[in-house]
Amino acid sequence: MAERPYTPDGETGRFVWPVRVYYEDTDAGGVVYYANYLKFLERARTEWLRASGFSQEELSRRHGIVFVVRKVEADYLAPARLDDELKVTLVVRELGRSRVEFLQTVERESVLVKASIQVACVGATSFKPVQIPALVREKMQEKIERIS
Amino acid sequence: MAERPYTPDGETGRFVWPVRVYYEDTDAGGVVYYANYLKFLERARTEWLRASGFSQEELSRRHGIVFVVRKVEADYLAPARLDDELKVTLVVRELGRSRVEFLQTVERESVLVKASIQVACVGATSFKPVQIPALVREKMQEKIERIS
Amino acid sequence: MAERPYTPDGETGRFVWPVRVYYEDTDAGGVVYYANYLKFLERARTEWLRASGFSQEELSRRHGIVFVVRKVEADYLAPARLDDELKVTLVVRELGRSRVEFLQTVERESVLVKASIQVACVGATSFKPVQIPALVREKMQEKIERIS
Amino acid sequence: MAERPYTPDGETGRFVWPVRVYYEDTDAGGVVYYANYLKFLERARTEWLRASGFSQEELSRRHGIVFVVRKVEADYLAPARLDDELKVTLVVRELGRSRVEFLQTVERESVLVKASIQVACVGATSFKPVQIPALVREKMQEKIERIS
Repeated sequence: MAERPYTPDGETGRFVWPVRVYYEDTDAGGVVYYANYLKFLERARTEWLRASGFSQEELSRRHGIVFVVRKVEADYLAPARLDDELKVTLVVRELGRSRVEFLQTVERESVLVKASIQVACVGATSFKPVQIPALVREKMQEKIERIS
Repeated sequence: MAERPYTPDGETGRFVWPVRVYYEDTDAGGVVYYANYLKFLERARTEWLRASGFSQEELSRRHGIVFVVRKVEADYLAPARLDDELKVTLVVRELGRSRVEFLQTVERESVLVKASIQVACVGATSFKPVQIPALVREKMQEKIERIS
Repeated sequence: MAERPYTPDGETGRFVWPVRVYYEDTDAGGVVYYANYLKFLERARTEWLRASGFSQEELSRRHGIVFVVRKVEADYLAPARLDDELKVTLVVRELGRSRVEFLQTVERESVLVKASIQVACVGATSFKPVQIPALVREKMQEKIERIS
Repeated sequence: MAERPYTPDGETGRFVWPVRVYYEDTDAGGVVYYANYLKFLERARTEWLRASGFSQEELSRRHGIVFVVRKVEADYLAPARLDDELKVTLVVRELGRSRVEFLQTVERESVLVKASIQVACVGATSFKPVQIPALVREKMQEKIERIS
């Protein structure tokens, strides 16, 4: 594991989160099971949010909102394997009123998975779209600028 | 769903639930990942409960209770593999005031995993032990007698 | 397993596979976790393949091939919840020399998730693209015609 | 996350591995799904092994062995929740010829899960018990003494 578990990647302005591959992530093909990369991608989004000052639990409890995935596009270029140390990266492509679009990768030396993820801000119980609260949006914007 | 997705096993008085092994269940060792048998065991408990007339969702919403696992003892005797058709079995060993103890197995031709699972009835939000509601307990008791 | 666990859906020529939602599939948001729909989609593809006469395990052992996912596009329209009985559907959009493209849905009364999945036939150890073996392709083609 | 992702815990001679709870780990009850603690426990065992100088992938490839779980006993005392920072701990209770027994916990401020895990060394393809290779055993022994 890296000494500093997440690091803004200076060269590219990306947010980077390290992920180690365990048995739980793999399948009988000897590689990471295709659905499990989506877990890795979400860990990075969650940690980016946390680095912006918010936990998902807090957003739900205090702000009454939840971020839910609306759309996933993922290209699987090469497989990750047991014990691999991966880098999961994130760039915010668009920060809308109630939507955020992320470009993400899972990398070893090269890119293994390339994804575009659309996330919507919804009411924690209604599951209907609501505006991202101003305070949250502001901190996200700062975070985007800080790592760009 | 199939017409008879579960079948009381006449010879032994056990409740039996079929489970097919998919890639999602396996790991890079080529066998079912050890934690995933616990999912299979819970599917059988949930279907036994449903066969008693209750869904977990309903128990939580109407009766304000949730069944949570307090203790697991599992012996892994032999591995299950991709595409295996497994039988997950269940016998109620003890039906207490707020606890249920299950003896369960995962089988192919022979027993692969043998487990004892203690489940507690708790308040859906408090997570504190409460008595199993009389109606639920009664139906469980009927179910136990019917398959014994 | 049940006698008719899958049913060609007469009206639409789709392959349909039933999936029940258990606790293992849900998350703290109270709905099915977004990565887990990909498990449901794969169960349907695996059962479609099995209905064509092939198991994944057999394809790997006898034919030295594995089908791996190359591309996922998924729209999450509405959430599935604990205890839901879902229908997972499948239509083959294109059957190429070494690729298959599936259009899939996860449905309750209405469509919850809509997905396009590209799958490649690769060597079981090389992970390099190979032609789908003639026998396998032929049976797939028959299956496609039979349910269309 | 901790600055030093794993740390021998000076006071108690335990190996400690930090785990963060993500949505993927939780269920509709709002807490960590009971099977998923077994993933956390295995991450700690894998990292303890790595700290002894071995990766699972290497043990399989070079030494032709795999460590498989034979027995799990787990007491679930209190639930972990979304965003929790957990400590997973490990003590080797017994290092046999082909078996290792671990005492493990999952902790927040207090102990949430207490487990005893028996692991067997088996041939990577035969899945039959074999002696732990001398080199591996020696390094494990050193590691045990170093953190005790």
